[in-house]
Amino acid sequence: MLDHNLLGGKLNHGLSAIDSYSLLKEGKQLSSEEIILISSLGWCIEWLQGYFLVHDDIMDGSSKRRGQPCWFRLDKVGMIAVNDGVLLRNHIAVILKQHFRGKPYYVDLLELFNEVEYQTACGQMIDLITTQEKDLSKYSLSIHGRIVQYKTAYYSFYLPVACALLMAGENLDNHANAKDILIKMGIYFQVQDDYLDCFADPQVLGKNGTDIKDFKCSWLVVKALERCNEEQKKILDENYGIDDKACVAKIEALYKDLKLEDVYREYEENTYEELINTIEDEETKLSKPMQAVLKSFLEKIYKRQK
Amino acid sequence: MLDHNLLGGKLNHGLSAIDSYSLLKEGKQLSSEEIILISSLGWCIEWLQGYFLVHDDIMDGSSKRRGQPCWFRLDKVGMIAVNDGVLLRNHIAVILKQHFRGKPYYVDLLELFNEVEYQTACGQMIDLITTQEKDLSKYSLSIHGRIVQYKTAYYSFYLPVACALLMAGENLDNHANAKDILIKMGIYFQVQDDYLDCFADPQVLGKNGTDIKDFKCSWLVVKALERCNEEQKKILDENYGIDDKACVAKIEALYKDLKLEDVYREYEENTYEELINTIEDEETKLSKPMQAVLKSFLEKIYKRQK
Repeated sequence: MLDHNLLGGKLNHGLSAIDSYSLLKEGKQLSSEEIILISSLGWCIEWLQGYFLVHDDIMDGSSKRRGQPCWFRLDKVGMIAVNDGVLLRNHIAVILKQHFRGKPYYVDLLELFNEVEYQTACGQMIDLITTQEKDLSKYSLSIHGRIVQYKTAYYSFYLPVACALLMAGENLDNHANAKDILIKMGIYFQVQDDYLDCFADPQVLGKNGTDIKDFKCSWLVVKALERCNEEQKKILDENYGIDDKACVAKIEALYKDLKLEDVYREYEENTYEELINTIEDEETKLSKPMQAVLKSFLEKIYKRQK
Repeated sequence: MLDHNLLGGKLNHGLSAIDSYSLLKEGKQLSSEEIILISSLGWCIEWLQGYFLVHDDIMDGSSKRRGQPCWFRLDKVGMIAVNDGVLLRNHIAVILKQHFRGKPYYVDLLELFNEVEYQTACGQMIDLITTQEKDLSKYSLSIHGRIVQYKTAYYSFYLPVACALLMAGENLDNHANAKDILIKMGIYFQVQDDYLDCFADPQVLGKNGTDIKDFKCSWLVVKALERCNEEQKKILDENYGIDDKACVAKIEALYKDLKLEDVYREYEENTYEELINTIEDEETKLSKPMQAVLKSFLEKIYKRQK
C-alpha cells in the first residue's frame, strides 16, 4: 500500500520542503540531525498528498494515477482504500511525534498539518458540491480560484515552506506576504493542471484527463465560458460533463476553436512576470533567503509539461 | 451532513466523558468553564465516531444506520461521503484548538486523539483484511480480540476516560490498570454488538445485521467454530459469508442449534463478574473515584439490548 501510493510521483512537495529549508539557511551545511528532521517533514507532506490522492481518486471515479491503476481499482483493495487513505494520514502524527516531540515548535507542526488538511478537505467539498450541481452559470474565475486555493494551494505550496520556517525557528504570523504569494503560485499550478488535463499527452502525464466528463470547474471551461458566442455556449451546455467520448471530443474541439492554448500561454507568461515582480518588490518586504525560496518554487513549475 | 451523522444515536461515547469527569471530581459542582470544556471533549469523541461510521458504512456496504439510510446511500451524497468523513474528523482539531489552546494538557489531547484514531484505523484494517481472505480456519478468539481491541475498545472506552483524566490534570501513564480494564470492557461491548447483530430485533437495533453475509470475524462465528461437529462445520464452510438470504438463514439456524444464545448469556455473566472483581480488587490499586468511573461504564452496557 505504501509503495503503491507514496512512490511513482515526482516527490516535488516533499523535496521542496528540503530545498526551502536549505535556502532559508543560505546554503550553510546542514547537520545530519537537520537533514533527518527536514526530510521527515518532506515525507509527512508526501504522506498527506498520498492520502488526498487515494481518496480523491475514489471520489472522482478515476482510473489511473502516476501511470498505474488507482489504488482502489485493484481487485484486492476496493473500498478498503478509504481506510488505507486514513492510515497514510495517521502516520503523519506518528512521524511528527517520533522526531519532533520536545521541540519548541512541535505543537505548531501539529496545528499546521491539521489546519492544512482541513483547508484541503474544505476545497474538496466545494469542488465536489460545485461539480455535482451541474450548473455552468455558476462557474467563474472567482469560484475556480476559491476551490483551487483551498484544495491545492495550501498543502502544495504553503505547507512545505511553513514546515521549513517552523524548523528554522520562525513564527508563521510574520510571513503573511510569503504565504499570499505561495497561494497565488498554487493557483497558477492548478491552472497548469487544468490545462494539462486536456492538452497534455496522457503517456507523459501518467493519467487520462477526466475534467470534461466530470463537469469540473476547470480553468479551461471558465475561459471557454468567457469567450464563447451563443452557438458555442450551446455546445458547452449540451456536451460538458457527459461521460461519452463524442461529447468530450466536441468540448476539446471547442477549446481548440477558442484558441485556449494561446490564452493559456499568455496567462502563464503574465502570471510568471507578475509573481517575479511581487517577489522582488521592496514593498513586499521579503528577506533575500525567502525571495530565493519563492523563486525556486516558481522556476520548478514554470512551463511544466507534467 | 452534521445532523445526519452526529445525531440519532445514543451519544453514549460523548456523555461518558462528562460522566467520567464528574465522577473523578467526586460529585463536586463543576464550574461553567469545566462543563463547557468536558462537553467539548464529549463532542469531539462523537465527531470521531461519526467519522468512523461514515467511512465504515462505505467499506462494509451497509444500508442503514441509526434507523436511517447510511449517509453515502443518499443520492446527493455517494462517494462525497469519503470527504465528509474527513471533514468530521478535521473539526476535532478545530474544537480542540478553540477550547484548549494554552492549557497545559493541550498537546496531550492532540496526541491522544491522533493515537486513538490510528489504533482504530489499524483495527479497521485488520478487520477488512481478515474478512477479505475468506478463510474460516484463521478465525479464533485471539484474532477476534485483536480486531476488537483496536477497532472499538480504544475509542469507545479508553478515549472518554482519558479525556476526563487529562482535564483533571492527570498523567495518563499513571493509569495503565484502568486502561487495561477499559480495553477488556470494550471487548465485552463488541461481543454484545456481535451478538445483537444476529439476535436483536432490527427495529430496536436501527439496522439489519450484516456480519454473516460479510464474512465478519464475529464472536458468534468463533464460538460456532469451537462448538460445531463435522457436519455443522460443513454448513459453516458452505454458507458463511455469502450474500444470499437462504445461506444467512442456515447460519442463523446453526447458531440456534449450537445454543449460542445460552453461551452468550454465560459469557456476559462471567465477564461482568470478572470485571467487577478486578475493579474492586485491592491489587488493581484503583482510586475510589476511578472505581466509580469504571463501574458506571459497566452498568451502562450490562445486558444492553441495543
